[in-house]
Amino acid sequence: MASASLDFWFEFASTYSYLSVVRIRALAAEARVDVRFRPFLLGPIFKASGWDTSPFSIYEAKGRYMWRDMERLAAGLGRTFRRPEVFPQNGLMAARLALAGLARGWGEDFSVAVFEAEFEQGRRIDDAELLSRILSRLKVDPNEALAAAQSNEIKALLRSETGQAQALGIFGAPSFVTADGELFWGNDRLEQALAWASGNGRTPHAPPSS
Amino acid sequence: MASASLDFWFEFASTYSYLSVVRIRALAAEARVDVRFRPFLLGPIFKASGWDTSPFSIYEAKGRYMWRDMERLAAGLGRTFRRPEVFPQNGLMAARLALAGLARGWGEDFSVAVFEAEFEQGRRIDDAELLSRILSRLKVDPNEALAAAQSNEIKALLRSETGQAQALGIFGAPSFVTADGELFWGNDRLEQALAWASGNGRTPHAPPSS
Repeated sequence: MASASLDFWFEFASTYSYLSVVRIRALAAEARVDVRFRPFLLGPIFKASGWDTSPFSIYEAKGRYMWRDMERLAAGLGRTFRRPEVFPQNGLMAARLALAGLARGWGEDFSVAVFEAEFEQGRRIDDAELLSRILSRLKVDPNEALAAAQSNEIKALLRSETGQAQALGIFGAPSFVTADGELFWGNDRLEQALAWASGNGRTPHAPPSS
Repeated sequence: MASASLDFWFEFASTYSYLSVVRIRALAAEARVDVRFRPFLLGPIFKASGWDTSPFSIYEAKGRYMWRDMERLAAGLGRTFRRPEVFPQNGLMAARLALAGLARGWGEDFSVAVFEAEFEQGRRIDDAELLSRILSRLKVDPNEALAAAQSNEIKALLRSETGQAQALGIFGAPSFVTADGELFWGNDRLEQALAWASGNGRTPHAPPSS
């Protein structure tokens, strides 16, 4: 069987990215799809829409709804959601660390652990101490990892990943992009994206749009 | 078994409302939930957010994505989606007619037919001729129905329904509200809302938020 693949674009400040990060590895294994974790920053993309923060903070009713929706959905996964005091958080350092870690084999575990700290323990993910503790737990040298994350290479990589997300038409997180260029937005679309990636999502009714 | 109920709030201009309107009656029957169709207007609610049209028209990437998403989802239902030339459309007359019809027994069939004309045939739903043809097909006298829809009672009812939607925290369509006050937003949440309404959606992990 040819190997199917899916790019998983996520942002560390994003609540719905959390729901996908904690689910995607098991679901992808089941669907026999190789998933590539691609952290990026939503901030520059939101700025292009004229927003200076999350739309959940700008639009009150939408924000109020989102927090309740998160409680219900996390409960459905057997997880207890905890709303952090700060939202949206600054995920810059976490995203750089994740990129460094993805090249070194610990990026996925690190990403899951950061999202759990943020949305299950309500922690601040711009706290270098918290990030260091997570790294240590993963048997990664925090100093080495933080140095790598601050390198010019990783800084440039995060910028180019964010630019690529925008070029792909991504406007929110999580988003999923298949090898044939189909974009799926939102945790609600994870299963559909995996089915598409593994060749089970297409129907004769759905020709690719121009 | 006690009768479970769910309020189904929708707007005739809304693409995702179309996907719920064509699905909800069969799914509700299966879940043994009584659904109440509640057409309302999103315009006044969007205005409160500072939008003068649909966010899909304001935010280009989001709009582009939505049209492709609709194609894929409609195809999954075995339906062929057709993008109308005008978006968003003016659903005022359709909403008033639907309210008149819901009190007279033909409002649900009328709503389904209007959405199919709009998003499967790409028709203009502010066209009195189209609406009259739909009414005739339902064995409803168009003149009588249009007169009822233009009555002060129905005009006031649509305004108060829209106000109630806003008071319930509704900010988009479709939305679903259970008897115990849980709000679910989006066609993606239809199944979850029905499960909640029928008493199968709650888990010990999900206490209602304050």
